Amino acid sequence: MTKGYTRWNSLSEASAGLNALRASGKTIGSIHSLGALHEGHGKVIQIAAKENDCVVVSVYPNAAQLAPGSVYQYDAEADCDLAHKFGATHLICPDTSEMYPSEYRTFFDQGDYYKRLDGTVVPYLFRGMITMSTRWIIFTRPTRTYWGLKDIGQTILVNRAVKDLLIDTEVREVPCVRYKSGIAISSRLMNQPEAKILEFQRVYEALEVGRKAIAGGLANSEKIIQIMHDHLNPSAMKYFSLKYIKIAKPLDFEEPTEIDIPLIMHIVVSDGPKNYFEGHYLRSQTDLMNAPETIWLDDYYPPFKE
Amino acid sequence: MTKGYTRWNSLSEASAGLNALRASGKTIGSIHSLGALHEGHGKVIQIAAKENDCVVVSVYPNAAQLAPGSVYQYDAEADCDLAHKFGATHLICPDTSEMYPSEYRTFFDQGDYYKRLDGTVVPYLFRGMITMSTRWIIFTRPTRTYWGLKDIGQTILVNRAVKDLLIDTEVREVPCVRYKSGIAISSRLMNQPEAKILEFQRVYEALEVGRKAIAGGLANSEKIIQIMHDHLNPSAMKYFSLKYIKIAKPLDFEEPTEIDIPLIMHIVVSDGPKNYFEGHYLRSQTDLMNAPETIWLDDYYPPFKE
Repeated sequence: MTKGYTRWNSLSEASAGLNALRASGKTIGSIHSLGALHEGHGKVIQIAAKENDCVVVSVYPNAAQLAPGSVYQYDAEADCDLAHKFGATHLICPDTSEMYPSEYRTFFDQGDYYKRLDGTVVPYLFRGMITMSTRWIIFTRPTRTYWGLKDIGQTILVNRAVKDLLIDTEVREVPCVRYKSGIAISSRLMNQPEAKILEFQRVYEALEVGRKAIAGGLANSEKIIQIMHDHLNPSAMKYFSLKYIKIAKPLDFEEPTEIDIPLIMHIVVSDGPKNYFEGHYLRSQTDLMNAPETIWLDDYYPPFKE
Repeated sequence: MTKGYTRWNSLSEASAGLNALRASGKTIGSIHSLGALHEGHGKVIQIAAKENDCVVVSVYPNAAQLAPGSVYQYDAEADCDLAHKFGATHLICPDTSEMYPSEYRTFFDQGDYYKRLDGTVVPYLFRGMITMSTRWIIFTRPTRTYWGLKDIGQTILVNRAVKDLLIDTEVREVPCVRYKSGIAISSRLMNQPEAKILEFQRVYEALEVGRKAIAGGLANSEKIIQIMHDHLNPSAMKYFSLKYIKIAKPLDFEEPTEIDIPLIMHIVVSDGPKNYFEGHYLRSQTDLMNAPETIWLDDYYPPFKE
């Protein structure tokens, strides 16, 4: 408490604490993270802090959505401090023995969703991600829970699970947080060579080129994807290889021949060890004409490698 | 309210009502049924009524666990009246358009569990049953939720899902309710010919013969199943055919060669259109030596067909 926030290191502590908050009639906003928090998370926490009495942030690198055997680099103490700086009042930092005891069995299945979009690149991703995200919501029972549109698939599927499982909470879909260059903030883009970041910027530009083509009247998916592909020019890329460019329906992540709004535009590139996801979720005619609502950072680029 | 209980016909009504109950500090016991309630449900409701201020009973024939296209016979009004007679204070009777809207997607996956025991006979059963059961618990957010050990697989898997999804409720496993003959009460055994019921009684007897063999020191699964099979004598059955006799571990429903406690003994027979499940869940040495705790009815048999 000396730091101005409460940190719970176990679910049982957190459960008692959350029950006390609810009993006191306080509204609770929740943000659920894998750790390695940055200003993007900060902006989401800030929104939650404006709309709720308390902001609960969980910091837990969910093994079930990460590459098997990989070690996720994060510093729980630094994450708690950053979250608090932006308005978090309560932090939950459990360990894996508590989150996945040996008898753990229950995962979600949302049908073909999990095989589409991000799921075509990382087949286990959605299953692990949506199950853990929804477990956090069930555990925290927030008044409102905040999910960023950096991860379009996650946000749509979490919202679906919350509705399907009759969870009594409001899912707030928060705009993507971007540098002025258009690049979405992400821990894996920080401290990379400048040339790599400049190359990566073409991904956002390709999204915008595609959006403008649709806004100009083009409805044929294949043609739009070709225009995006031409701008991206993956054969001339030095740092990244293209995994896919997709245009999909938010209802089922199917990829239609002729498109209409709402739609998801999604690009995945890889630098070998890691995949990088970028997308536009165009929910309305306004999103289509002006680009989706965005939270803009002051910086133009992520910090470069020295 | 003129009937002495509150009936909610939609989830939104029920949600508001449940929030009010919780806000008033009342403890809530929940029972979730498919409808067609009988004295077996009544006994469970009675236990919940002793332990809680309010007892919420849901009455909904969950399509996702019933044979596709089948019509489940029940009378919601009669079910509400019966539930109230045994102590239910609040009834939830929603319709399918609300429970499974066209965008519905989220089901549970608990691994090989769903392919074993009951799942070998009805492959879709557990998926639909455990998802809906757990949705009800998430929706109702009871202090305690009551699940009968007539359906051993369901109770174990619901308990697993509640723990895995971090749902803040106590799962109360309630003993099986049996007629004095040993037959477990079930709507599908009512109003059948007397000779059919007498034949069905052999299923319970076979469980008991098996249990006593284990209590006597036999540990080889195959031999125990043979003894049960000999008693059941399915080739001499007129009304039923044997689907299986299984001895399985509660942890994963695997069928070990050499058994120990805890264990599930399970028999499924069929009369053609319907399957009939009977089992013992032996959780302790006491269960093994004395038979599992049972709630005994006054009647010796279910009501026969006239």
